[in-house]
Amino acid sequence: MKTRLQVLNCEYAVRGEIVTIAQKLQQELKDNPGSHPFDEILYCNLGNPQALGQQPITFFREVLVLRDQPAILDRAGTRGLFGADAIERAHKIQDQIPGRATGAYSHSQGTKGLRDTIAAGIEARDGFRADPNDIFLTDGASPVRRMAFSVPFLSTRFIRLQLHSMVALLYLIILMKQWDGDWKFSELENQLETAKLNGISVRALVVINPGNPTGQVLAENNQREIVEFCKKEGLILLADEMLIGMPRCIRRMFMCRTSSSTHLRKSLVRWDTVKMISPLYLFTPCLKGIVESVENEEVTWKYLVRPEIKDQIYKVASVNLCSNISGQILASLIMNPPKAGDESHESYSAEKNKILSSLARHARTLEDAINSLEGIRCNRAEGAMYLFPRIQLPQKAIEAARAANTAPDAFYCRHLLNATGIVVVPGSGFGQVPGTWHFRCTIIPSEDKIPAIISRQEKFHEKFMDEFRK
Amino acid sequence: MKTRLQVLNCEYAVRGEIVTIAQKLQQELKDNPGSHPFDEILYCNLGNPQALGQQPITFFREVLVLRDQPAILDRAGTRGLFGADAIERAHKIQDQIPGRATGAYSHSQGTKGLRDTIAAGIEARDGFRADPNDIFLTDGASPVRRMAFSVPFLSTRFIRLQLHSMVALLYLIILMKQWDGDWKFSELENQLETAKLNGISVRALVVINPGNPTGQVLAENNQREIVEFCKKEGLILLADEMLIGMPRCIRRMFMCRTSSSTHLRKSLVRWDTVKMISPLYLFTPCLKGIVESVENEEVTWKYLVRPEIKDQIYKVASVNLCSNISGQILASLIMNPPKAGDESHESYSAEKNKILSSLARHARTLEDAINSLEGIRCNRAEGAMYLFPRIQLPQKAIEAARAANTAPDAFYCRHLLNATGIVVVPGSGFGQVPGTWHFRCTIIPSEDKIPAIISRQEKFHEKFMDEFRK
Repeated sequence: MKTRLQVLNCEYAVRGEIVTIAQKLQQELKDNPGSHPFDEILYCNLGNPQALGQQPITFFREVLVLRDQPAILDRAGTRGLFGADAIERAHKIQDQIPGRATGAYSHSQGTKGLRDTIAAGIEARDGFRADPNDIFLTDGASPVRRMAFSVPFLSTRFIRLQLHSMVALLYLIILMKQWDGDWKFSELENQLETAKLNGISVRALVVINPGNPTGQVLAENNQREIVEFCKKEGLILLADEMLIGMPRCIRRMFMCRTSSSTHLRKSLVRWDTVKMISPLYLFTPCLKGIVESVENEEVTWKYLVRPEIKDQIYKVASVNLCSNISGQILASLIMNPPKAGDESHESYSAEKNKILSSLARHARTLEDAINSLEGIRCNRAEGAMYLFPRIQLPQKAIEAARAANTAPDAFYCRHLLNATGIVVVPGSGFGQVPGTWHFRCTIIPSEDKIPAIISRQEKFHEKFMDEFRK
Repeated sequence: MKTRLQVLNCEYAVRGEIVTIAQKLQQELKDNPGSHPFDEILYCNLGNPQALGQQPITFFREVLVLRDQPAILDRAGTRGLFGADAIERAHKIQDQIPGRATGAYSHSQGTKGLRDTIAAGIEARDGFRADPNDIFLTDGASPVRRMAFSVPFLSTRFIRLQLHSMVALLYLIILMKQWDGDWKFSELENQLETAKLNGISVRALVVINPGNPTGQVLAENNQREIVEFCKKEGLILLADEMLIGMPRCIRRMFMCRTSSSTHLRKSLVRWDTVKMISPLYLFTPCLKGIVESVENEEVTWKYLVRPEIKDQIYKVASVNLCSNISGQILASLIMNPPKAGDESHESYSAEKNKILSSLARHARTLEDAINSLEGIRCNRAEGAMYLFPRIQLPQKAIEAARAANTAPDAFYCRHLLNATGIVVVPGSGFGQVPGTWHFRCTIIPSEDKIPAIISRQEKFHEKFMDEFRK
């Protein structure tokens, strides 16, 4: 139970005490303008781009809208308001949905026709066969974890503890990579040994790649090592590869930063050519809010996903009926966007590139600004929309935090918020190498907010360091 | 763990083995037309109206669509395709959503502006103050149960067992009402005593009203008894009152069937005038797929929802970020539909009444047909879209079922499916009075399917009873 609560605390970090304070400050600013030394709250805590001004892709929205209100699909006025290919795609999707109704529950794995489209998109991207019957569409990654650990095959209380232990373990791995330039494989083995010595019989490893909160990407050889490690130790590999499935160009932006130019192109599932000797299971989310689960084909049928196990997974999925239909449709659109020659192709590409180049600019600007601060070191964002700077806090600040019964990085983040209105997440909420302190901030605030964020953070940081210097 | 798996099996019933067989048959019919003695599968298993041809309400869809594609909100062509009040409402909702973005995560309890609208709708309906800060919008009822039982205050392993025990208990109560004309209060007390004797320290009672699978409504005095019982025993009351929050006219359809003409109008929360001496907590869903939780105000602040408990509930809610925004908007529209004088009021009323009168016709037709069958007795549908006929099976059928290692009602349902293509849910999947057998069927298939359902079921039933008569 203790572990479970720890994890609650951990996950809660992103929307926790700091956010509650931020909302209070926002209300105070509204009720009494001028009551704080800043005039707005700057949310850098959540990977929530559209809340911060990022515009949705028109083609995606057009198709969603035409599916939700098919009454206007064939009206004359519709052609003037929507792209011809969006209308055509909406018709196609209407045929894929049983009952042609987006207001109905779907198959528990997601609508079959949409899974067909997604499977074809994965095949085109990764170059191996993806079976739509092996794909489960869910509302984000949390239901996948719940599903995986509710399957009787996995469901003992011990397993729940293991999951959480392994999550903590994972973050350590990624931090290793971040600070030593590469990931220490021996650290993973050590953690497993420690867990075993503590009586935890480890059954699964969760890999989040690109990492959250670090934004770092596991190199190709590290990915291979992890797969081999899971085989050797008989672990289930749960791979949360959210950004892997995002339109390739979103990842391409980051690629120049990584040592290998290809290792981001495909998901871990490409290791299907390795002959597997132990269970291996992979969840490959394809965009924020939608998750698809793809099983390694060879492994699937030979070792892990014996039909009775897959039946159990389906059973657990069916308890919650199905994921939301708009999300399912969106997943199929992302895996099959407008192609060259389609009416919407040009606007789609322009909108997408605008988002990507803006993200790249933000990442560089924020990295540079943060790295210029005393005692802070920040790695380059490689594959996610997060930065996870490490901060060397003065001893007096650490002591003041302990006196206030707070983690030192949370102490720093609260001071930052109260002085500047900037909201970031303390690293202690995620788990970090003992004795180190971090905060996570996103690279997604809109262009016009960036200068304010940088100048306020600089001024605050200088003052904070001076105050606690000795 | 055993209990947990029992519950998995139970909830799975609605989409379980029978549905898997149905999908297989459907594929066979597609691949080899004429391969079965019927030409289509008739799904009467799931409360999924729009999958069976029920049309969505135009006004609701128009507002949703205009919110998802605000680019067209102010275009000239839009006025020709959408109602003026839908455009106005979409503008209003745009102002209620921070960042004006439906593609973003919201506050974990749901967007504040939408909760304001919902709270005002509850106040107007139930006549007591509803605080938007006490409302949590979720994706259906399952997350509410998970939330309630993850709160540290409640979260022991024992509680999980209790929840499930109490769910089973509840179904017994409703069946009592169904078969004896009224609900036996003593049965609830007996069940509680039995649970205590088995070492289960019961902490909560889940009430689903109107009942699922029975479609029955608890009379006003029974509701009062349950509230008093929870007070006396110190139980948390979790009230799943999905249909209570549906537009009142949907319920009015059923009202002529009940002894009291008013007891469906308001939720159990109206018992706020009763002085509470123990914790009481109520979840009041307001439509299929959307749940709002309303706390009894007086109780809330005096007894149960001390601020630190509410903080815990918020914490658990925030782990899964938020419910889907379209659902949140829909909840606000249902609690504040077009009013007399609004452009869409006439079409809204006409569409709604069409749905309701169709449901009422279906319910009567199916009830009468089922009650005419040998050995089957079916109560009137009072408040939900389900019928839950009790079936007296011949001894030989019961023995054949046991030989096949199947519950007798599941045996009947499987034979029904294989002979007719009709999909219903065995009562044994929900829990029923020992020694009785039922099936649940919905009243929502489209008008043109009803005659086929009735004639096929009649022919099958006669043959089945003859085959197993002696």
